[in-house]
Amino acid sequence: MSEKTIPYKIYLEEQEMPKQWYNVRADMKNKPAPLLNPATHQPMTFEELRPVFCDELIHQELDDTTPYIDIPQEIQDFYKMYRPSPLVRAYCLEKKLQTPAKIYYKFEGNNTSGSHKLNSAIAQAYYAKKQGLKGVTTETGAGQWGTALSMACAYLELDCQVYMVKVSYEQKPFRREVMRTYGAKVTPSPSDTTNVGRKILAEHPGTTGSLGCAISEAVEAATTQEGYRYVLGSVLNQVLLHQSVIGLEAKAAMDKYGIVPDVIIGCAGGGSNLGGLISPFMGEKLRGERDYRFIAVEPASCPSFTRGKFAYDFCDTGMVCPLAKMYTLGSGFIPSANHAGGLRYHGMSSVLSQLYHDGLMEAVSVEQTSVFQAAEAFARVEGILPAPESSHAIKVAMDEAIKCRETGEEKTILFGLTGTGYFDMVAYEKYNNGEMSDYIPTDEDLQKGFDGIPRFPGNEF
Amino acid sequence: MSEKTIPYKIYLEEQEMPKQWYNVRADMKNKPAPLLNPATHQPMTFEELRPVFCDELIHQELDDTTPYIDIPQEIQDFYKMYRPSPLVRAYCLEKKLQTPAKIYYKFEGNNTSGSHKLNSAIAQAYYAKKQGLKGVTTETGAGQWGTALSMACAYLELDCQVYMVKVSYEQKPFRREVMRTYGAKVTPSPSDTTNVGRKILAEHPGTTGSLGCAISEAVEAATTQEGYRYVLGSVLNQVLLHQSVIGLEAKAAMDKYGIVPDVIIGCAGGGSNLGGLISPFMGEKLRGERDYRFIAVEPASCPSFTRGKFAYDFCDTGMVCPLAKMYTLGSGFIPSANHAGGLRYHGMSSVLSQLYHDGLMEAVSVEQTSVFQAAEAFARVEGILPAPESSHAIKVAMDEAIKCRETGEEKTILFGLTGTGYFDMVAYEKYNNGEMSDYIPTDEDLQKGFDGIPRFPGNEF
Repeated sequence: MSEKTIPYKIYLEEQEMPKQWYNVRADMKNKPAPLLNPATHQPMTFEELRPVFCDELIHQELDDTTPYIDIPQEIQDFYKMYRPSPLVRAYCLEKKLQTPAKIYYKFEGNNTSGSHKLNSAIAQAYYAKKQGLKGVTTETGAGQWGTALSMACAYLELDCQVYMVKVSYEQKPFRREVMRTYGAKVTPSPSDTTNVGRKILAEHPGTTGSLGCAISEAVEAATTQEGYRYVLGSVLNQVLLHQSVIGLEAKAAMDKYGIVPDVIIGCAGGGSNLGGLISPFMGEKLRGERDYRFIAVEPASCPSFTRGKFAYDFCDTGMVCPLAKMYTLGSGFIPSANHAGGLRYHGMSSVLSQLYHDGLMEAVSVEQTSVFQAAEAFARVEGILPAPESSHAIKVAMDEAIKCRETGEEKTILFGLTGTGYFDMVAYEKYNNGEMSDYIPTDEDLQKGFDGIPRFPGNEF
Repeated sequence: MSEKTIPYKIYLEEQEMPKQWYNVRADMKNKPAPLLNPATHQPMTFEELRPVFCDELIHQELDDTTPYIDIPQEIQDFYKMYRPSPLVRAYCLEKKLQTPAKIYYKFEGNNTSGSHKLNSAIAQAYYAKKQGLKGVTTETGAGQWGTALSMACAYLELDCQVYMVKVSYEQKPFRREVMRTYGAKVTPSPSDTTNVGRKILAEHPGTTGSLGCAISEAVEAATTQEGYRYVLGSVLNQVLLHQSVIGLEAKAAMDKYGIVPDVIIGCAGGGSNLGGLISPFMGEKLRGERDYRFIAVEPASCPSFTRGKFAYDFCDTGMVCPLAKMYTLGSGFIPSANHAGGLRYHGMSSVLSQLYHDGLMEAVSVEQTSVFQAAEAFARVEGILPAPESSHAIKVAMDEAIKCRETGEEKTILFGLTGTGYFDMVAYEKYNNGEMSDYIPTDEDLQKGFDGIPRFPGNEF
């Protein structure tokens, strides 16, 4: 480390912000497996993907050789509205933990979407606009991704149609209203606006919806309206590419002060944040330039990496999307209702899955009461009330720092603080009232999910 | 303006952050009138204030001659956790409005309290801690101030007791849970924990509470528990002093780029944000160094400046606090239930009242549907979903920028964006559903409030 005094927050200058995204696939020896057509089990072609996704985004999705891709000026300008995000030195947390470790976090919550999701939302909306489309469709659960997309579309004057899981639409109206304030059309799913929605409503009149159903409705809405495409907030390669801005900024800020992290930690749901944060560091590791430890943190109630299978599976519960090779609990796996917050996805980014499979990254699962304990301790000393998702990374970062206290090692820890918990107060209330409990699926629970993974030659697991 | 390109966001370096607060009273020729003892109508003495307020804060309250007061290192360190706040160039808003005006805003919402309130909360909590107190008490309505105080107390490990208006406690539980997460004891007011609370409950069993009642309970709790004092989030001179950090940072950032604002705009409830933002600029005006236009923006439904009386009045509806000379609608004035968001206070900072009375500042009132229109337009182009309070300033800043479009003047406009609207989605929902309306009190409505202002020799109005 240099002799410069490290400030509490490192902000890059505007001119130091990344002008290109970094595509970690270009440096991977073992490339992530391609998406497969679920009918033919052959790799999805550009033409097959065109009805669903924007052309430029398909190119990005399929490109595993180009290491750097220019960020269009219009997206750079949008980034300037809420980026660079600060790289924070957690002096107060270090003091609280009495650790010799140096803890840094890259904080992505200082924007109205409340998370890193905006980094990819603006990119996807931009390419849709550039292609001359009228609008985009998507699904959202609690509403973080839907909010980000609404903001991006409002900025570009693009129509935005969000299918929001009905139970969230009704019981968590605040993010819905943020989306509406940004001009999005928010429809509770299942709805009578699509065939698939009507079918589900006829079969299950009282259903409160699911993410799988909302995806199916959003895809149908995109493919049946002239001038619309479907967009997705995580899992896809293109999303990790856009999210690399997180890691690139973090690395530039660290380089500026001569800081080198020993261990890099992120929460993992679909992988967009973790993949974005680690990308440029992983690139160095893949090229043999420098070694780092990477830790993916997932909830014990939805343990894709630590207890899932590495296999081709559907990305959605409706089984309309292509097959992706990933660590999966089975597209039919549903996390316990007890589980608060996000990170509920059954699968995982193919990029991260391959890196984990190749031993380039570790994974650990944590239980939710310990996550909220960490969140509360963090909030009280660092001031920021974290999202439950982000708090998974906080928990493991604190554990690593405590280990350093015990061993005396002065490790440098970097973790991703993906967002704020302002719309998660129902979960915090449960925790504050001592009503939160943990749930770990049994092997039998998981087996039911695995039984739903498609079997075909080449998909042994 | 210099030739330097102005970035979207100007962040001061840590070492450029203010090390002293600026006390605008020192430069005022006509000092704000002193607080009076409501029984004797004599100026409140240090000893009379001691049972209620911390000693050091009383010194700050009464000091109208010292221009600069050191910010203790511990408070500076806390400020570094969430400050400097960005000074933002509203390029996108300028483009949207097609105005030649240059618009800047100082954004105070990037912290978990969601507003500027934290600037004074940490100062007040710090002096309480330094005095060896066990804790502090306060009241809160929707919870913004209570949240800020909870965060400051959690950081300093000081007990925090918040009396929250019962209707907000029950109907707006999210800020309550943020406070609880920060370890505060939140009591719905009126409660059976105080004499005044029990009395009100006995007289009005079904009451949902009021800010006036909550203040009375908080003051009683402070004065009847060993080692406690009462703290307040606005109106007082000490609060304006602490909030001067907003204006000092804004001015330093502007000076760095050679930017000189022509007009400075802020919303005004009790005056803490506006007073803090304008202080150093007003100092220059008072010293005859440079002229600026200052505009206070208040809701048409609670028009203290534009339709109130300049007189001594009670600061609280319970009439237990000292009398302050200010623009007031009468301590019994209650804004229409129709009014969404804050800025509901019947009175106004004595400092700002004197400046307005002396013609050094303008004031304007705006109706709430136009405020939400401005908020929505701002959110869509600038990305930030503003608090309803802050949106009053946005509305007038936009009006000024539109005037520049008409006249061709390239004015530089600075306004205070005090906070985010994430906990105000009920009001936004009302607006989104077209269910919001305006309310302007009649002269007869106002007269009822004026009738409650105490009459005594020297308090003619």
